[in-house]
Amino acid sequence: MKDWIDTYDDRDWQTTTEGSIRFALLGLGWWTIDLALPAIQDSDLGEVTTFVSSSSEKAKRLADENGVDHGISYEEFHDGVAADAFDAVYIGTPNALHLEYAETAAELNKAILCEKPMEATVGRAEEMVAVCEDAAVPLMIAYRMQTDPAVRRTKELIEDGFIGEPVSVYGNNSQPLLEMNPAMDQWRLDPDLSGYGTSVMDLGIYSINTTRFLLNREPLAVQSRMDSHDEAFEDVPDERSSALLALEDGIKMVTTDSQNAHSDTQLKITGTDGQIDLRPAFHGKAKLHLTRNETTVTVEHDSFDAEDEMREEFDYFADRVLTGADIVPDGRHGLQDMRVIRAIHQAAENGEIVEL
Amino acid sequence: MKDWIDTYDDRDWQTTTEGSIRFALLGLGWWTIDLALPAIQDSDLGEVTTFVSSSSEKAKRLADENGVDHGISYEEFHDGVAADAFDAVYIGTPNALHLEYAETAAELNKAILCEKPMEATVGRAEEMVAVCEDAAVPLMIAYRMQTDPAVRRTKELIEDGFIGEPVSVYGNNSQPLLEMNPAMDQWRLDPDLSGYGTSVMDLGIYSINTTRFLLNREPLAVQSRMDSHDEAFEDVPDERSSALLALEDGIKMVTTDSQNAHSDTQLKITGTDGQIDLRPAFHGKAKLHLTRNETTVTVEHDSFDAEDEMREEFDYFADRVLTGADIVPDGRHGLQDMRVIRAIHQAAENGEIVEL
Repeated sequence: MKDWIDTYDDRDWQTTTEGSIRFALLGLGWWTIDLALPAIQDSDLGEVTTFVSSSSEKAKRLADENGVDHGISYEEFHDGVAADAFDAVYIGTPNALHLEYAETAAELNKAILCEKPMEATVGRAEEMVAVCEDAAVPLMIAYRMQTDPAVRRTKELIEDGFIGEPVSVYGNNSQPLLEMNPAMDQWRLDPDLSGYGTSVMDLGIYSINTTRFLLNREPLAVQSRMDSHDEAFEDVPDERSSALLALEDGIKMVTTDSQNAHSDTQLKITGTDGQIDLRPAFHGKAKLHLTRNETTVTVEHDSFDAEDEMREEFDYFADRVLTGADIVPDGRHGLQDMRVIRAIHQAAENGEIVEL
Repeated sequence: MKDWIDTYDDRDWQTTTEGSIRFALLGLGWWTIDLALPAIQDSDLGEVTTFVSSSSEKAKRLADENGVDHGISYEEFHDGVAADAFDAVYIGTPNALHLEYAETAAELNKAILCEKPMEATVGRAEEMVAVCEDAAVPLMIAYRMQTDPAVRRTKELIEDGFIGEPVSVYGNNSQPLLEMNPAMDQWRLDPDLSGYGTSVMDLGIYSINTTRFLLNREPLAVQSRMDSHDEAFEDVPDERSSALLALEDGIKMVTTDSQNAHSDTQLKITGTDGQIDLRPAFHGKAKLHLTRNETTVTVEHDSFDAEDEMREEFDYFADRVLTGADIVPDGRHGLQDMRVIRAIHQAAENGEIVEL
């Protein structure tokens, strides 16, 4: 137990401590400024040299305020302005804009860290994969749970037989989006910018991807049910969503997600011999509840918040770019989530099982 | 808070403290002897006068050992032997035998407390309802969660708007059946005795019924997926089951249940403004986790185990029989669960949405 705790947040993925990746950040919302920027500043292998936003004025102002060298517009980014100042881009814009910035980054031969979901549709995500593979630029999708120590230790425990054979998975991710951002015209409620919908794309993806990572099993078929009630959600089909995913090896996964409900995240994996419950699971400060026989061990790691998750994610990305090693959550990995999410939306529409 | 705690386990349902119901207990397994018998002995309004089992020898021996007046065989029960000694029967036999004992009890004009699920199939459950209604004998299905204080307080809180509008429900009930009873020929694995299957009939029914009771909303449609892997489960379709239930008012419910997994029970109801999580939920010692805004209140009531749940259930039944008042979990209420469970099995078989 002592060793387990002492090495709990060790970076078992780190392969280099040398070098630095200079980032351009695209999409200067609160997420990028308040979380991504300090996370990179706190990282070992990354630094921010460039801000990219809708106007060069806004970009320059925010760059000045935050001690960043360059502030350029999206147009200037596409024109290659300041391209010598960065090695990689972080794309934190609305989903449907990811592809165009990835295309330019690939042309400029920059490595790409792209927020999840990777694009608005499977077709556009496929294009992104093709563009990056053709240009031979590294592409990582920003699944920060995969470098969260709680998730990595969970994966080790499962591989060590802690829960026996996995039997069932429950994932929930809900939040009151309109309390967090009351704007009726926000992009998460606009299918032109968000894609298939809002709750599965933005929230359900956490349960889906983390489960795929933890169990190393893929969903084979999905069923689902979703609907929207509140006026603010009239353009998206999934104010409330529920899904049933059949994973490889007969594992049963059920999920609920909502952008208009009380904040809650849980990911619970029950096996023949034990259970691992991440409660809360996502958005930082994940708490592990590990049960075998009659004994439950609860693991808290108070300092590990969303910004820490981002720092680990950026350093993982930088580590892989610097060494040229494979990235686990790469474009093809992210594309699979897009296919699962599309299948969930299709299944809700036609009321049938959608095979993957 | 002080008043809430002081009245936490008050019997808000009790209407009389006068009188007594004399019970005959049918089906003398460990559940009846170790839990039901002491529960009735500890109750205010009940007493056990008669044991009914496969042979009069076994029944008499167990009656003697437990200070019960009469011990008779099922045959003698059907013949009306010792019928003057009891006012009501508790049917704790395998599911597919409930109907025949209910029929005789109705002929004998005895009130009936029948274990859940009420029978093996919807058709036989319908017969039971008809038989009891024709004979005008009270019929209660033994949903002991409905008189568990944790569940009753939860229902009050939901009705008081604690969680706002209900959005989603998650229910899990799993246990390692073969560790609890290693017999390969046990009735829960024999569809002739258990009915549609084992995990949903025996375990899933807790999530389904408790949710119906708590939310006062019925399932309108179900989708599901189930399968069996282990040899012991080859005759039943649902060693592992998962279901997606669409409740009235757009509430999304997801469930997982397994008779071959680590023991776990949880029933979590998430609303627009809060969440109530019963964790553990079933089989005694339910713990309430009540969350609104940033505050969670955890309510434990250590003394309230499965035997206490049974005592409350028996006294509720006796109270209603003595006063002639309506029973909430009556035959028609139990029949609805049978229809939901049949729909879950049908949905798994045909891969389609089954409407209720």
